[in-house]
Amino acid sequence: MENLTATFRLLKHSSRNLFDRRSSLQLFNSIRSSNSGLTYNCTRSCEQFTRDVCYHKQNFLAHSCLLRGSGNGNLTNLPRFEGYGFRIHCRTLASAASTTVRNQSFSSINSDDISYFKKILGERGVVQEEEKLDDANTDWMRKYKGSSKLMLQPRSTEEVSRILHYCNSRCLAVVPQGGNTGLVGGSVPVFDEVIINVSSMNNILTFDKDSGIMVCEAGCILENLISFLDNEGYIMPLDLGAKGSCQIGGNVSTNAGGLRLIRYGSLHGSVLGLEAVLANGTVLDMLGTLRKDNTGYDLKHLFIGSEGSLGIITKVSILTPPRLSSVNLAFLACKDYTSCQKLLSEAKRKLGEILSAFEFLDIKAMDLVLKHLDGLRDPLPSSMHNFYILIETTGSSESHDNLSNCYFESVPFSHITREKLEAFLLESMESGLVTDGALAQDINQASSFWRIREGVPEALMKAGAVYKYDLSLPPEKMYDLVEEMRERLGDAANVVAYGHLGDGNLHLNISTQQYNNSILSKIEPFVYEWTSKQRGSISAEHGLGLMKADKIHYSKSAETVQLMAAIKRLLDPNGILNPYKVLPMSVLSQIGGNKPNKEV
Amino acid sequence: MENLTATFRLLKHSSRNLFDRRSSLQLFNSIRSSNSGLTYNCTRSCEQFTRDVCYHKQNFLAHSCLLRGSGNGNLTNLPRFEGYGFRIHCRTLASAASTTVRNQSFSSINSDDISYFKKILGERGVVQEEEKLDDANTDWMRKYKGSSKLMLQPRSTEEVSRILHYCNSRCLAVVPQGGNTGLVGGSVPVFDEVIINVSSMNNILTFDKDSGIMVCEAGCILENLISFLDNEGYIMPLDLGAKGSCQIGGNVSTNAGGLRLIRYGSLHGSVLGLEAVLANGTVLDMLGTLRKDNTGYDLKHLFIGSEGSLGIITKVSILTPPRLSSVNLAFLACKDYTSCQKLLSEAKRKLGEILSAFEFLDIKAMDLVLKHLDGLRDPLPSSMHNFYILIETTGSSESHDNLSNCYFESVPFSHITREKLEAFLLESMESGLVTDGALAQDINQASSFWRIREGVPEALMKAGAVYKYDLSLPPEKMYDLVEEMRERLGDAANVVAYGHLGDGNLHLNISTQQYNNSILSKIEPFVYEWTSKQRGSISAEHGLGLMKADKIHYSKSAETVQLMAAIKRLLDPNGILNPYKVLPMSVLSQIGGNKPNKEV
Repeated sequence: MENLTATFRLLKHSSRNLFDRRSSLQLFNSIRSSNSGLTYNCTRSCEQFTRDVCYHKQNFLAHSCLLRGSGNGNLTNLPRFEGYGFRIHCRTLASAASTTVRNQSFSSINSDDISYFKKILGERGVVQEEEKLDDANTDWMRKYKGSSKLMLQPRSTEEVSRILHYCNSRCLAVVPQGGNTGLVGGSVPVFDEVIINVSSMNNILTFDKDSGIMVCEAGCILENLISFLDNEGYIMPLDLGAKGSCQIGGNVSTNAGGLRLIRYGSLHGSVLGLEAVLANGTVLDMLGTLRKDNTGYDLKHLFIGSEGSLGIITKVSILTPPRLSSVNLAFLACKDYTSCQKLLSEAKRKLGEILSAFEFLDIKAMDLVLKHLDGLRDPLPSSMHNFYILIETTGSSESHDNLSNCYFESVPFSHITREKLEAFLLESMESGLVTDGALAQDINQASSFWRIREGVPEALMKAGAVYKYDLSLPPEKMYDLVEEMRERLGDAANVVAYGHLGDGNLHLNISTQQYNNSILSKIEPFVYEWTSKQRGSISAEHGLGLMKADKIHYSKSAETVQLMAAIKRLLDPNGILNPYKVLPMSVLSQIGGNKPNKEV
Repeated sequence: MENLTATFRLLKHSSRNLFDRRSSLQLFNSIRSSNSGLTYNCTRSCEQFTRDVCYHKQNFLAHSCLLRGSGNGNLTNLPRFEGYGFRIHCRTLASAASTTVRNQSFSSINSDDISYFKKILGERGVVQEEEKLDDANTDWMRKYKGSSKLMLQPRSTEEVSRILHYCNSRCLAVVPQGGNTGLVGGSVPVFDEVIINVSSMNNILTFDKDSGIMVCEAGCILENLISFLDNEGYIMPLDLGAKGSCQIGGNVSTNAGGLRLIRYGSLHGSVLGLEAVLANGTVLDMLGTLRKDNTGYDLKHLFIGSEGSLGIITKVSILTPPRLSSVNLAFLACKDYTSCQKLLSEAKRKLGEILSAFEFLDIKAMDLVLKHLDGLRDPLPSSMHNFYILIETTGSSESHDNLSNCYFESVPFSHITREKLEAFLLESMESGLVTDGALAQDINQASSFWRIREGVPEALMKAGAVYKYDLSLPPEKMYDLVEEMRERLGDAANVVAYGHLGDGNLHLNISTQQYNNSILSKIEPFVYEWTSKQRGSISAEHGLGLMKADKIHYSKSAETVQLMAAIKRLLDPNGILNPYKVLPMSVLSQIGGNKPNKEV
């Protein structure tokens, strides 16, 4: 214990803020990692950051085959990852696409349709070039590929409305698309659906500097919003790895989770209002900018997380919190999962209002990262530990040096949040919850801590084939699944666990030499059934899309799915909006088949 | 300025925590004030609290004519306020009730119905005694009175399901009821609807000490939940004046706002899951306990705030935050509304994570309180100010005295949140945003500060007739309405403003000698039209109920209301659930009329 206390004591004398997420936007593109969604970049132009920036840049280049260019929303000519592991992954995991049959009640586009769209959108808004369509037809992971011959790029809500009114009357299926960064095949066509890409609707419409309420169009790239808010002294309540490409309309449509959920909650809480266009072209103006409004049913929530299957979100009103200036990060070790859980509970109680991240990885994940990622070193090198935890705190720590009458110079606030974290860590070590730990002293150290957590998906890809599951589970049960899975699979696979422990979100990854139906049959449906028994969610933050549409019953009751289907029928009687997604085909097949009626 | 700085300096030396909301539950009943919803009571059994407690007890007795007994949910033999002002209030404001016509497609109960209900609920669950029915037929303010001859008291979800299945097949209209504390006539029958009171379903089912997630039945009284959580070291994210009687099912059904919204957000963020019974008896199990679940449409939000018109909520799963121990309170003066707004913006930025209340009242409200409430004194007596602000901060400030290796004795955390507030106030005075202020030094002072804010509705009732409006408005526009209203009304009325400035929620009250149609015609529809033009809400936290059902178009677009009606038709085709409420009669009249079909 003396040794451990010494570790902290060694680290305790720096009070400089470690880093500042807000500065992550201009200098280089974001690095996207598929599951963790975690990036930690810095751009402040001072020398101390140079090494870190170079490291990230190298990293970005090295893995660009996995990435789509960020920051501009341009989908053309982007590198694709074509490695061996990927092709198998594709074949194995995209099976939903191969078993889906086109709904024959949908029309196919013809020259009259094209003429009509050109009339309302102009030539520029009607995309038929093969190369552009190829990108728009393919998801980021190249797991799913549609065969659409037409992408429309409206520039206003009215244009979206006219497009949908027409498509509905013609029974032309459509797929709404933003940054096309989804991981479950939700943002690309399955067959020849018309792609409605809202990237051109990318204006910030209003921002209230007092309330922090921003209204913007659906096509705004998340990173641009973060950057805009940074200049205003605010932050987005949402931050995720795909921020350089993903768009706010898609974020809201998929109820994206991300890094700040533990602190700022889900988009159901942050989004104050929406404008959405229904399948028949009706524009629903629910674009309130109020924190409180109890006048009738709060219909915006239907569109948050419905993955574009009920309407196309065209504008978003969102409450953004003030940017806080003091950020600290600790990398800790725990001897068992129970300690991790208790540490979380204690952190919520004692760090309370300043806790901004609580991430975990197990020994297998740590081992993989250290093996496969260059340049990373173990922050706690004396021995390997069963579990590792990252705790980040963020607080308001204004320097009050400019106050002439300030009477408490002895308590500079820039120290307070750090000291609070230090005190918490000391206490946790004293009580035995934490067996070792380090508190980042500077931006480089913080970045290297985050890099370990961020690096897990990448290390997994390098290790071979991987079966990935994104699960929400009661935290007390979460690790039981990992252990049971290890028992089931024995030496046949490496079962790796990490994720957002603070949100109860487990990323369960099963790493093998190669994909193998025998192993898959031991994993599925076991993993879904186990999750279902614990009343967990088979999709914590990625949505269902095409990939898991027919798995919904593992997380939702039959009655609830029936009601979802009834609402889908009510809002989209012809089923033209993002077909084959979200709900099972058996339910969806009851929709559609209305006689196309060109009444435009 | 020297003098003002001195004020704070004078106050700065105490670092004891002022009070602790968690201790407000056992000793005496809550005092409910109609609009502010604000109570601040203490029960810690130490001498320092005695005077305060006595004061509250006297207060409770003095105003018991306005109150319903709290803490037990028992509705019988409660005193009613029968004063002059009230009767006029009743006649004037309950006009919606008098213009509503019974939907003749609803059946009337007969002896077969009674027999059936006794069969499934037993004698105890079927209430026909006139006295009990009188209470259940009448709302808390006695503005609305139905004529139901039957109240059912189910004890399980299955019983609710069987009741609704039967009522739906018989086309018997029902009104769901919990604590019956609503202020818009939503929780009582309009005519002879069957009352389904869920008070007997009052079990806490599970509580997870690590995650703070609680699952309970709909009939749990809010105060009991607060008390239970207090023992566990957690708090409800919801707190409001009616907590001694209101029930969580009703809170969720009406999306209750209350005191903690600025800190913990709305119930759309806190409620993790629901169980609800549809009109036809279908039980929707959406009772998840997960922070993240992106599997299909998040239908629970349809039931949050739909005032029992889409289904009856039977169980609730809610995320509760850890209880934080350091609470501080400041009472401040501002010279103009712009300063109030700026102060809010600064408070959000600089107090950030510890800000837990930001309330305001204007000079008219302060004047009324000082005139009409006994025993209150002005905390800033040197002069009257145009605006008064209450700022409360709450933070985690664990004492670390028990840490043997603690190295920062010079920064005891019990001081930190207080010092942060003090520093903020000093800075605000230096910059001129605040012209005078006091920081509460003990529980009595804190209580007297809150009593001023809480006392406004009571002072208004004592001052004469009052027209009350509960509005959400963009904060920058909020006070313009008050000033325009003053200009419109001149000397004919006293226009008083107070409310939850931090949430953009204005309680606009127009106080006159007596009710007068000429004055009313100058207020309405002007106040609704003005609110509508600003894209505000005509009901920030009270809901629409019967009172404002036909006013919904002031806050929601025609297309949105149409979709609400379509969803109502989908979920409740016979329109039996809480008829005449929430949606305008013109829309509701399209529902119902199905031939009753006894198929039970």
